[in-house]
Amino acid sequence: MRKLKLTVQYDGTDFAGYQRQPNAATVQETLEDCLSRCLGHPVSLTAASRTDAGVHALGQVVCLETEVGLPLSAAPTAFTSALPSSVAVIEAEEVDAAFHPRFDARGKQYVYRVVSRPVRSPFLGRYAWCVPYGLEPERMRAGAANVVGRRDFRSFCAAGGRTENAVRDVTRLDITCEGDLFEFRIEADGFLYKMVRNIVGTLVEVGRDRMAPEQVGRIIEARDRRAAPPTAPPQGLCLVRVDY
Amino acid sequence: MRKLKLTVQYDGTDFAGYQRQPNAATVQETLEDCLSRCLGHPVSLTAASRTDAGVHALGQVVCLETEVGLPLSAAPTAFTSALPSSVAVIEAEEVDAAFHPRFDARGKQYVYRVVSRPVRSPFLGRYAWCVPYGLEPERMRAGAANVVGRRDFRSFCAAGGRTENAVRDVTRLDITCEGDLFEFRIEADGFLYKMVRNIVGTLVEVGRDRMAPEQVGRIIEARDRRAAPPTAPPQGLCLVRVDY
Repeated sequence: MRKLKLTVQYDGTDFAGYQRQPNAATVQETLEDCLSRCLGHPVSLTAASRTDAGVHALGQVVCLETEVGLPLSAAPTAFTSALPSSVAVIEAEEVDAAFHPRFDARGKQYVYRVVSRPVRSPFLGRYAWCVPYGLEPERMRAGAANVVGRRDFRSFCAAGGRTENAVRDVTRLDITCEGDLFEFRIEADGFLYKMVRNIVGTLVEVGRDRMAPEQVGRIIEARDRRAAPPTAPPQGLCLVRVDY
Repeated sequence: MRKLKLTVQYDGTDFAGYQRQPNAATVQETLEDCLSRCLGHPVSLTAASRTDAGVHALGQVVCLETEVGLPLSAAPTAFTSALPSSVAVIEAEEVDAAFHPRFDARGKQYVYRVVSRPVRSPFLGRYAWCVPYGLEPERMRAGAANVVGRRDFRSFCAAGGRTENAVRDVTRLDITCEGDLFEFRIEADGFLYKMVRNIVGTLVEVGRDRMAPEQVGRIIEARDRRAAPPTAPPQGLCLVRVDY
């Protein structure tokens, strides 16, 4: 039995998230159905991340087992040509039978995009949170400095997430700005449920001058979700990379 | 009577081009219907450029006449909220009654995007030409050097275009490359029918090593459309800006 690790990209707009569920189109079901047809046997996938409805991926990682001797170099093209245009397999490699895409992940990188302008964008509406107010990047960077480090991030974990251990190590949180487009790039050894979207929701409050940058530190110290502002919407979020 | 100049953005994917035609969704019809509803009288638009089916715009310019005293600062938001999500009005200003968006244009800037990678992209498929072969940027830049300048571009004018005077002044043709994404940015005092897509189609032949860079100069000198390689597809093209 071979174990294959696939790197997958998808536009999450028309999916009810990664994870299979009844009566809704999911990335997992789309991939499993397509790979089953390609390989001629039922395929069941494990994934690095269960991205939410509307969230995108440039580097989701999934694993499957197969006996089929498909050459690895041909796999991305073969699989992608059988998938709908919103999903693509960009890389395939063979891994050890013990490899697990979620438990073996050392870290992940996400990008969250915000567009700040009075009218919505025909191009970025599916891939960014469009806000009609101005944002000050320096204020948001000052707020973000409170996030980087090894901390208990319970305040940024949405209800529904398991919070036995909410300590995570955020190793990077960069905010870049080009014209009206802001990119929040965040790396950590792991993320709590909706953690990135909760952090961005809070930093945008700082950027529009409705909260002081230092307040971000106090929200984290409170270790209470009710201390933090609302969650940023899903379409701005993209899983960029999983590191092993 | 006031004359308004509107700057318009659109995702051209689902339109049969800018110009109104029977039995097909066009940008012009969508805008005229929406502006007529907003202003309460029939609106007929003149435009800077009749972009083709599938071509996008970040800075199309259209003009209309109205007696309605709508404040200019409120116009973009008011018009955009009445438009489908694929179209937005980002700026409105009042201009002289004699102003014409096409005849008064001093120049235009277009961007054409090409993605070079073995499998298609879920994100760029609507906004780029995805090619499965490698491209050498230095070869394409050498080819592009033959395009810049004041020349007779008849060889790059598609059938159906009027070619009485095919002399145009190309003032800029930059090719940038970031990862697998190539951007061709081109400025001229005016463009012939499908001129940008014909230039890019030719430079891609150079980039994949099926044509020598110097051959681009010989194609222009031939002053014959049959001398040039096929036209690049529409979805990679975007009208960025019109200068007055």
